[in-house]
Amino acid sequence: MGGIADVARLAGVSKSTASRALTGSGYVSEDTRRRVADAATSIGYVPSTSAVSLATGRLGSIGVVMPTVSRWFFAEVLEGVQSALLEHDLDLTLYTASPGSPDRRRILEQYLPRRRFDGLIAVGLEPSDEERERLKQLGRPVVSIVGEPGTEGVVAIDDVHAARRATEHLIALGHRSIAFLGGDADGYWEHVDRLRLRGYREAMADAGLSGYDRHVRSEITMPAGYAAAVDLLGETRRRPTAIVAACDEVAIGAIIAARRLAIAVPAELSVVGIDDHEFAEMFALTTLEQVPREQGRIAVDMLVQAIEDPERRPQDVRLQSRLIVRNTTAPLNPATAVTVSDTGLARD
Amino acid sequence: MGGIADVARLAGVSKSTASRALTGSGYVSEDTRRRVADAATSIGYVPSTSAVSLATGRLGSIGVVMPTVSRWFFAEVLEGVQSALLEHDLDLTLYTASPGSPDRRRILEQYLPRRRFDGLIAVGLEPSDEERERLKQLGRPVVSIVGEPGTEGVVAIDDVHAARRATEHLIALGHRSIAFLGGDADGYWEHVDRLRLRGYREAMADAGLSGYDRHVRSEITMPAGYAAAVDLLGETRRRPTAIVAACDEVAIGAIIAARRLAIAVPAELSVVGIDDHEFAEMFALTTLEQVPREQGRIAVDMLVQAIEDPERRPQDVRLQSRLIVRNTTAPLNPATAVTVSDTGLARD
Repeated sequence: MGGIADVARLAGVSKSTASRALTGSGYVSEDTRRRVADAATSIGYVPSTSAVSLATGRLGSIGVVMPTVSRWFFAEVLEGVQSALLEHDLDLTLYTASPGSPDRRRILEQYLPRRRFDGLIAVGLEPSDEERERLKQLGRPVVSIVGEPGTEGVVAIDDVHAARRATEHLIALGHRSIAFLGGDADGYWEHVDRLRLRGYREAMADAGLSGYDRHVRSEITMPAGYAAAVDLLGETRRRPTAIVAACDEVAIGAIIAARRLAIAVPAELSVVGIDDHEFAEMFALTTLEQVPREQGRIAVDMLVQAIEDPERRPQDVRLQSRLIVRNTTAPLNPATAVTVSDTGLARD
Repeated sequence: MGGIADVARLAGVSKSTASRALTGSGYVSEDTRRRVADAATSIGYVPSTSAVSLATGRLGSIGVVMPTVSRWFFAEVLEGVQSALLEHDLDLTLYTASPGSPDRRRILEQYLPRRRFDGLIAVGLEPSDEERERLKQLGRPVVSIVGEPGTEGVVAIDDVHAARRATEHLIALGHRSIAFLGGDADGYWEHVDRLRLRGYREAMADAGLSGYDRHVRSEITMPAGYAAAVDLLGETRRRPTAIVAACDEVAIGAIIAARRLAIAVPAELSVVGIDDHEFAEMFALTTLEQVPREQGRIAVDMLVQAIEDPERRPQDVRLQSRLIVRNTTAPLNPATAVTVSDTGLARD
């Protein structure tokens, strides 16, 4: 097994170029990177983590803690984090456990305190006060994606603004009877759902439509959104003409429910989501876009900086969502509107 | 969730035979092994290794390498692995990268050779010959979920059998013009798709329907299945009366495509998938069930045993899928059948 000098000689580059190519710590062409990697492989050379810009003594690993990997948002964040960590030559140690589970306790009480990472990315963790205290005691930098009040170093979209824009879009199309679907029904994501609900309510109030305010609870999954929407849309006398969904998965569940009930979208029902989920295009869903992969990459950058310079406190990053208008929202059908206002929904 | 005694009773074998069958620690016939595995799966039993104490000097971490975490199957496997590792007091180091990407090279050439884990779980990796050689050189036990030919220590469903059962179900309902949707269009999952395609073709041939054999390529995602099905179902003169989808995501894409084209499922088109995906119930999808979370747990057990006893080579675990009949398959509508055979599809 040779050293970096052997790798450089074999690849026909300088030692510093070979080092950059192997550690991802500076620019090299793809062709050079490949030649260096091949040279390293052929002589069995493995770069030590200490070669990275991180000082020696570091573990070369970042912890990621999230409630699930089975939802689009979390999976996308995780892939963004993974990809960014590979560029920084850092390992990813994953801790997944849903709120209230024994695994969650085990992770917070046994695994994280071992501090087998140089820093931690907490995704949608929504920690209890006790858990927050534990995180502080780690003595490791923590960056949060989807932050909670009191958390520092948060990467997130402006949830209030996103839901407000979604609602305003429907109001501008003439809708008044607009329901908010999702939230308040499961253990995680509560904080985000509250922010989005607030954005919806603010937009309704600003338009003088508080009387039409209607929040339908649902877990933030497609099947749960479907089930909640079947109930909501099944009451024909009280049916809203539009839905703001807490996220795209709930929105898509609502669209599937509408099809099942033979309610035409968007002719009889407008639906808008928040996410721009990978299925959004297939369902022609109007939505507020967020890019969780990018949030993952930003969080890694913030965390690496915090590890390198513990004095510097990470600044929050608040991203604005963009409205993408597709084909699930349309101007209010006056016939539908009359029916609805006749049923006294405003006095609900 | 029962214990080993329940598994043994259900499989009609002694406790020690059940134990051998599940741990691969001694001889049992393939038939017995299969019965025991089915029994274990059906009651959610995973052999306990709580008695296991990893010798000191171990790193206390298991590596998991997979092409993506954004698909249902991979996310579920990952959560199963995570949950099982927590019971074994082991960390999970994640390496995700899609085939052919620079990240994939980096992981195989730089990250894995550092051997910062006591063993590796490779999920749907489908390694090239060169990559397989690299994995061998790690000198660490490797267990594969979804194995490729030549791999040892594989946990997987019997893919040929699953697709065969799906196809036979449609044939028994009177269908002849049955298309297989999915596979051969992207970089990973090729091996699995080939096995499933083979199961479909075997069933068609056994029923004398080889003349109707039709494979429509599609990536194994919902949007790709949707797009491929829009093309397939749009050709009204050559439309099949039933579809075997390579997996549930493709099947659901096909169902959404059928709705878009106003083709009634199952009256005019039967669709069967493989997975029992979390959305399967919402779409009333008939499917062959697999439980990837369970596969993740079994892989952890096998790997922990291989770490403890390097002499013992992990036995393959092949799980049988169960047919779940919901509401997307129905007896052939004779009117549809006449139309199709008139168009000469059999000579396609």
